[in-house]
Amino acid sequence: MKLGVCYYPEHWPESVWADDARRMRELGISVVRVGEFAWSRLEPARDNFSFDWLKRALDVLHAEGLEVVLGTPTATPPKWLIDEHPSILAIDENSNPRGFGSRRHYCFSSVIYRQECQRIVEKVVCEFGQHPAVTTWQTDNEYGCHSTIVSYSADALTAFQAWCERRYKTIDKLNVDWGNVFWSMEYTDFNQIPLPMLAVTELNPAHRLAFWRFSSDQVASFNKLQADIIRQHSPDRDVMHNFMGNFTEFDHYDTSKELDIAAWDNYPLGFLDRDGIDLEDQKKWFRTGHPDSSAFHHDLYRGMGRLWIIEQQPGPVNWAPHNPAPLPGMVRLWAIEAMAHDAELMSWFRWRQMPAAQEQMHTGLLLPDGTEDEAVAEIRQLSEDLKKLAAFDTSSTKSEVALVFDYSGDQMLRIQPQGQNFAPLEWVQNIYTSVRRSGADIDIVQPGDALAGYKLVILANSLSISEPLLAELTSFEGHVLVGPRCGSKTDEYSIPPEMPPASLQTLIPVKVSRVESLPDFCNVATADGFNAIRWREKITGSVEPVSTFTDGWGFYYCHDRCHYLNACLDDVSLLKFMQARLQQSGVATCACKEGVRIRRRGELIFAFNYGPNAVELDPSKSYLVGNATLGVAGVSVWHE
Amino acid sequence: MKLGVCYYPEHWPESVWADDARRMRELGISVVRVGEFAWSRLEPARDNFSFDWLKRALDVLHAEGLEVVLGTPTATPPKWLIDEHPSILAIDENSNPRGFGSRRHYCFSSVIYRQECQRIVEKVVCEFGQHPAVTTWQTDNEYGCHSTIVSYSADALTAFQAWCERRYKTIDKLNVDWGNVFWSMEYTDFNQIPLPMLAVTELNPAHRLAFWRFSSDQVASFNKLQADIIRQHSPDRDVMHNFMGNFTEFDHYDTSKELDIAAWDNYPLGFLDRDGIDLEDQKKWFRTGHPDSSAFHHDLYRGMGRLWIIEQQPGPVNWAPHNPAPLPGMVRLWAIEAMAHDAELMSWFRWRQMPAAQEQMHTGLLLPDGTEDEAVAEIRQLSEDLKKLAAFDTSSTKSEVALVFDYSGDQMLRIQPQGQNFAPLEWVQNIYTSVRRSGADIDIVQPGDALAGYKLVILANSLSISEPLLAELTSFEGHVLVGPRCGSKTDEYSIPPEMPPASLQTLIPVKVSRVESLPDFCNVATADGFNAIRWREKITGSVEPVSTFTDGWGFYYCHDRCHYLNACLDDVSLLKFMQARLQQSGVATCACKEGVRIRRRGELIFAFNYGPNAVELDPSKSYLVGNATLGVAGVSVWHE
Amino acid sequence: MKLGVCYYPEHWPESVWADDARRMRELGISVVRVGEFAWSRLEPARDNFSFDWLKRALDVLHAEGLEVVLGTPTATPPKWLIDEHPSILAIDENSNPRGFGSRRHYCFSSVIYRQECQRIVEKVVCEFGQHPAVTTWQTDNEYGCHSTIVSYSADALTAFQAWCERRYKTIDKLNVDWGNVFWSMEYTDFNQIPLPMLAVTELNPAHRLAFWRFSSDQVASFNKLQADIIRQHSPDRDVMHNFMGNFTEFDHYDTSKELDIAAWDNYPLGFLDRDGIDLEDQKKWFRTGHPDSSAFHHDLYRGMGRLWIIEQQPGPVNWAPHNPAPLPGMVRLWAIEAMAHDAELMSWFRWRQMPAAQEQMHTGLLLPDGTEDEAVAEIRQLSEDLKKLAAFDTSSTKSEVALVFDYSGDQMLRIQPQGQNFAPLEWVQNIYTSVRRSGADIDIVQPGDALAGYKLVILANSLSISEPLLAELTSFEGHVLVGPRCGSKTDEYSIPPEMPPASLQTLIPVKVSRVESLPDFCNVATADGFNAIRWREKITGSVEPVSTFTDGWGFYYCHDRCHYLNACLDDVSLLKFMQARLQQSGVATCACKEGVRIRRRGELIFAFNYGPNAVELDPSKSYLVGNATLGVAGVSVWHE
Repeated sequence: MKLGVCYYPEHWPESVWADDARRMRELGISVVRVGEFAWSRLEPARDNFSFDWLKRALDVLHAEGLEVVLGTPTATPPKWLIDEHPSILAIDENSNPRGFGSRRHYCFSSVIYRQECQRIVEKVVCEFGQHPAVTTWQTDNEYGCHSTIVSYSADALTAFQAWCERRYKTIDKLNVDWGNVFWSMEYTDFNQIPLPMLAVTELNPAHRLAFWRFSSDQVASFNKLQADIIRQHSPDRDVMHNFMGNFTEFDHYDTSKELDIAAWDNYPLGFLDRDGIDLEDQKKWFRTGHPDSSAFHHDLYRGMGRLWIIEQQPGPVNWAPHNPAPLPGMVRLWAIEAMAHDAELMSWFRWRQMPAAQEQMHTGLLLPDGTEDEAVAEIRQLSEDLKKLAAFDTSSTKSEVALVFDYSGDQMLRIQPQGQNFAPLEWVQNIYTSVRRSGADIDIVQPGDALAGYKLVILANSLSISEPLLAELTSFEGHVLVGPRCGSKTDEYSIPPEMPPASLQTLIPVKVSRVESLPDFCNVATADGFNAIRWREKITGSVEPVSTFTDGWGFYYCHDRCHYLNACLDDVSLLKFMQARLQQSGVATCACKEGVRIRRRGELIFAFNYGPNAVELDPSKSYLVGNATLGVAGVSVWHE
Repeated sequence: MKLGVCYYPEHWPESVWADDARRMRELGISVVRVGEFAWSRLEPARDNFSFDWLKRALDVLHAEGLEVVLGTPTATPPKWLIDEHPSILAIDENSNPRGFGSRRHYCFSSVIYRQECQRIVEKVVCEFGQHPAVTTWQTDNEYGCHSTIVSYSADALTAFQAWCERRYKTIDKLNVDWGNVFWSMEYTDFNQIPLPMLAVTELNPAHRLAFWRFSSDQVASFNKLQADIIRQHSPDRDVMHNFMGNFTEFDHYDTSKELDIAAWDNYPLGFLDRDGIDLEDQKKWFRTGHPDSSAFHHDLYRGMGRLWIIEQQPGPVNWAPHNPAPLPGMVRLWAIEAMAHDAELMSWFRWRQMPAAQEQMHTGLLLPDGTEDEAVAEIRQLSEDLKKLAAFDTSSTKSEVALVFDYSGDQMLRIQPQGQNFAPLEWVQNIYTSVRRSGADIDIVQPGDALAGYKLVILANSLSISEPLLAELTSFEGHVLVGPRCGSKTDEYSIPPEMPPASLQTLIPVKVSRVESLPDFCNVATADGFNAIRWREKITGSVEPVSTFTDGWGFYYCHDRCHYLNACLDDVSLLKFMQARLQQSGVATCACKEGVRIRRRGELIFAFNYGPNAVELDPSKSYLVGNATLGVAGVSVWHE
Repeated sequence: MKLGVCYYPEHWPESVWADDARRMRELGISVVRVGEFAWSRLEPARDNFSFDWLKRALDVLHAEGLEVVLGTPTATPPKWLIDEHPSILAIDENSNPRGFGSRRHYCFSSVIYRQECQRIVEKVVCEFGQHPAVTTWQTDNEYGCHSTIVSYSADALTAFQAWCERRYKTIDKLNVDWGNVFWSMEYTDFNQIPLPMLAVTELNPAHRLAFWRFSSDQVASFNKLQADIIRQHSPDRDVMHNFMGNFTEFDHYDTSKELDIAAWDNYPLGFLDRDGIDLEDQKKWFRTGHPDSSAFHHDLYRGMGRLWIIEQQPGPVNWAPHNPAPLPGMVRLWAIEAMAHDAELMSWFRWRQMPAAQEQMHTGLLLPDGTEDEAVAEIRQLSEDLKKLAAFDTSSTKSEVALVFDYSGDQMLRIQPQGQNFAPLEWVQNIYTSVRRSGADIDIVQPGDALAGYKLVILANSLSISEPLLAELTSFEGHVLVGPRCGSKTDEYSIPPEMPPASLQTLIPVKVSRVESLPDFCNVATADGFNAIRWREKITGSVEPVSTFTDGWGFYYCHDRCHYLNACLDDVSLLKFMQARLQQSGVATCACKEGVRIRRRGELIFAFNYGPNAVELDPSKSYLVGNATLGVAGVSVWHE
């Protein structure tokens, strides 16, 4: 795993660049990301390009042997451009233009903005595409950050109507697919279709789903526009984008088709202090982040390309509701954990803390005055650790368990959660946690990915079952665990004619005949001690339930190697349930303490301790990093 | 009591209509509501009418002997009409048009929309007004649902200014009545009066009250426009509208003047899971609904016309924050309870669950695949129950207690609650509960209705005392209980010159000289154990208090047969207080267990059990339905 | 101290004016404020002036020997003026005009409104400027109430761009000062600078700070416009404005430069029942107000001019979330406490409760029917008290402790609190409380005020250290306590080059190298029992910490007479910490019970009891008011 850092030469006097580059190299850093917000410096006024400064910066980095990841500057169109073409601005759900003064103020559907992006990206790529330092391009920055996928602009309306026409061909088909007869919502022409906004009450979920798909497709095509230019003018460089954590507002699989590297930006403490995160979890993992948060995303994004962490929290951030300091050791732990999950690069945000503007309170590797901040000592130790592991085979290891993650399914659950406490992504992550606490590794796969070779495949949020997914499941020889709500919708957001779980009934002949959502005060227990929370389904059909709830509803159905879980479970119940399924499937398990996680990569086994106490590991192993006592924020690595 | 169902032939292939009709009849259903959202099918494009399908549907229903309630389609103007006349859309409080894509997107003041409603209603009524199946018309659907009474459109502004001119005659009178001198809010012309919106801080309460009255009048005149057409072109049919639960955004008495049948839509579990409902109540009545919620509305709406329940929850709904399944038995219980409260019709929403669009997760009597859902078995049992009761006299019984319910008073309390925890409707319902738990039946009457014959009349939210109400009270020979805040305002929302309770001082010579609102953490107790919450009044005058608060303020005043309650009480105190008043008034009482309710109709006495345990009734009675052990969700009926 | 009252002759028939005036005088009132919302009566239509009624009202008051404070009517432009010039309306952050129908609906930047204010103020001042009753003018009313400092109008945009050009001279300097390079926010012309609104995510804090300074300057110039007219046409009268409590939305020091009298409006119970006030505090001080709330503001505003309380709560108010009655005695206590803090006038809002419009539920000295409300008896007792104290010297006494209060610093903390539970003003008030509970008096001073003579100076919210403040601190010979975050920003909202606490490092050589914000569930304790909450700083440098936190961070640094507190503390810890600092500084202290406060003025010492129990004072003193047993809501005064 290489080490990297995000650097903004335009923020600092040119006189310090060489020294910065030297200090980076001495710290073990070999990759530097630059340029992704620099439009106002690259083109201070229309067609008045200023590329010299960036060329000099790249030369300085190159002179120290540093590789450069160069970002296209399209996340921050400058004010002169907005004043020329106000239609670039995204429009919010109240029909107001989103204002200038921060970033990401553009509409993905703006025809003019796509032309402008083409222009600036071509200019930048032609200028620097052959520079010897540049090995990788980053497209834009964090698509969708600050709720920017969606725009209600005139261009978006036109593009959405055209998208509908392409998808549905005839307005009658759209009316039928959406069930528009319901409240006289039928259209007689595609140009009647409005954007789903400002409605009196709930909008048609099919209308919302179509608008989500359209908006997601706009991201993918926006990204492809840039990727195509890069591949044309800067061949042999990789194309990368930096995704985010806990973010499902567009289908990342589609966008990543045009990427070589699926990078993401990891802020473990920032992600934890959010509304909706369980308060007990916030307390437990206050200075470490949740023990499965980083791992889940590593496993998710490595399914979309080579895995990079291009931005990693090095200390307190500025943007969370509260911004505590991480526990000493966590900067190193997070880095080695990324490696254990197949990351090729660990890169911190940012080299030196910027003393002005929005993120002045975001720590870096250096303080604003240039002295070292606390992460640096941990990175030095990390460099030593990496040397010890360099000789071993770390090729990626296929897991025994696959979790199918479905962005459309996640969105369907958000559009009609049915229960306001139903948290779509949290439910998937709870399942992930239950597998990881059982000691098993996990691959996160796309619907339709090959499943052969896994022992257990889990459907967690596959609301609509595509034909490729069904085909894979049908030929699959391992165990399949189907979670609640899977198969409950058609691709156009209606209840399937055969009733849920739709085509999965070929795997297990159950029919969901009633569902209920439960408030937090109402859990329902089974005779054998499982606790259903938030969601429960009543099953009819020929399969007998394995257990029953105290009010007579059946719980958990099994047929051949297919398992149907008809309720959401609390954490303790889910862990117990999952351990039994893993054992049935022949997956090797071992119970992990609450804060401890194990991960295998190639010849190596890694252990991480997020918990408040030291933990004793097997003393008979020979430890390459750490030892049999896994301290707080500790890492141990041994050779299988 | 007849049984009915809501049916949408336009949602289903014509091939299943006959079978649907047959199954309805076999289940004991005799009334079917159709058509209320079908504009886009009745007129797919301007003047392109399509009535054949509906005629065929009516014929099919008629062939099975089913009566039809036909709805006017004005709750869902189609998109072609909105595109033709965007001014139909209501305008929200931020001046944005409310978007197309759900329902009820029209402005009651839109001049064009009234013309369009006249046009479509005339067409539909002329077409089907003589059809033998049609016995009743429903006007529109759920006036006001989703906060749609109010619109801030240009048409609303013009109409409101004209309304003010009609009411106040001169601008000087308006200025004086509203107290506009207060912050230089005086107008010199009616055309200066703005809609009450977007103000810097609190608006003049008289301005808000006038706008509420105007908006309420717009609903009444909108309804009358349709009723007049129906009476002209479809004589001998009844006119009905379906009101809602817990909804006071317009004065239902005014609108119901043009109705024969006051129907309402009853969703007991959906109503319970709302912000603001006491969490303990939500837990207790999670799968039954509150034991007084249905009854309160039955008693309220039967005061406005013949009582129908046109939509009744048959299982989980889709639109509440959480949507649990009702306890087995509740579908039957809710039906018999409606009968006990004088309902002529119990009709469920809906026949078959719609697999698409907004309400796809709302259960019906049939599942989307046409198989029976769980309510059907209870309806079969219900049909048997009704046969057993058919022979008895069930003419309506006048109660001994009357509760005066005042829509203007409710609105006045909302405009200036004085304490943010003051919940106007909940306070009335708490009083209702305290009477019902004492075993007494209750009639809910309009201010000014005749009171002769009652033993106790309760004023709960009569903030302004009209002359007809005062006249009735003056000549009334029973006991009068006046609750806090009654008589505290003039009709134009000012403090009455004689000080509260204004003209009620002719009944009891008290003067409210100070009031205070109390946060939830501050209750004040009396020496004899009553607990005041939220609101308290200090009384001066010649009447001695019956008791005193610990800080010396007096509590409860009595003069002849008039009782003045000068504080809101917690549930326990209120029950104790009310039992004493009922006994003083000579009303027969019996303590009901928390979840048990008794109701008399004609020769029959009904008992219902909403509680978690079975309850033993008098074993000496001869039970027509059920027996002396009133089980969970149980009903027992005996003959007096 | 004089007594006064707010009176609105335009609300009452002229026939009662004389009687009102007589009753005022008999109650001991000598000052009457009138006229501040009367524009619609002074000019019912353009240029149609109507001054006679006001002249007659002034004559009536003068005849009873009452002084008049006359308000300019600019807080309530009437509807005819708004209809003539809609651009007068302020524009909200969603670009909507703020509606007519309450008050303060104007934009401070409206060019037309400034002309209209000049016109009406000149008219009124010329008309009444020489009237013998008029001794004082009030400008407008409660600048900023209801979030009205800020407007996003076209006039505001133009004025803000011009303000920026005046401040920064060149656009390059502005770009550098704000760090606009950060997200390509650089401008090439001042006319590109937008108002900070509707941005996608956080705006540049320097941009927000500049807009706050601009908006604050607009208030000062608006006030100066009126003050200049008054001084020209009504010489020898005082100019006063009525500020508010807990309000920091503009820099009051700047505005008060044009005032003789800094008045404020004091509603102790209303201020307490606010979101964000600690619930335990709300419970404790429910009927008294917080024991430091009034005192803090008295001490703050007496630093800006002669101190008046022009509006004081006489009973329940109408506008708080809940509106309880004050404890008997509090009206008198609040009045004597104001005197103890140097007030020249205690004036109640209002004479007679208005029975109509927005504030009809706000109590006055009289009920709407003209009978006396409860405050009157306490005012009679107060008049007797004041007579007993009249003979003593009550010249203002300089305190031993000075607290520097910085409006810019407060705003900086609001722009980037870093922790959502960080409450800038509450933190300053907690420090104030810790001093007052230690028995010491306190002066609140402006940054740059002379500090010589104090024993202890406290910096609580001085985020940016100005040169005059540094110069004062450098020459100051007493102790200096620097609180957390002081010196952490430059004047342009960036981290200072020398790192925090910037130039304060000349007093104590510490460097803040890391900060963290803490959620409420995470406190960190020191070895010696101090509890840090919300905010903590890690210090590097040559000074050893006095103590350490359990995780090794240092706590509290001391160098010569400079003390650096590097964390926020909970109330108990802060009191203990402050008592030690006061003792080190040689300030006389005495522990006060939680609800008891002591204050010295001239020869007199005052004690006040906000607590729930009587407290015994030194029996050896000779009490002028009260005695050695300080009852609940009691006041005792003795002669030193």
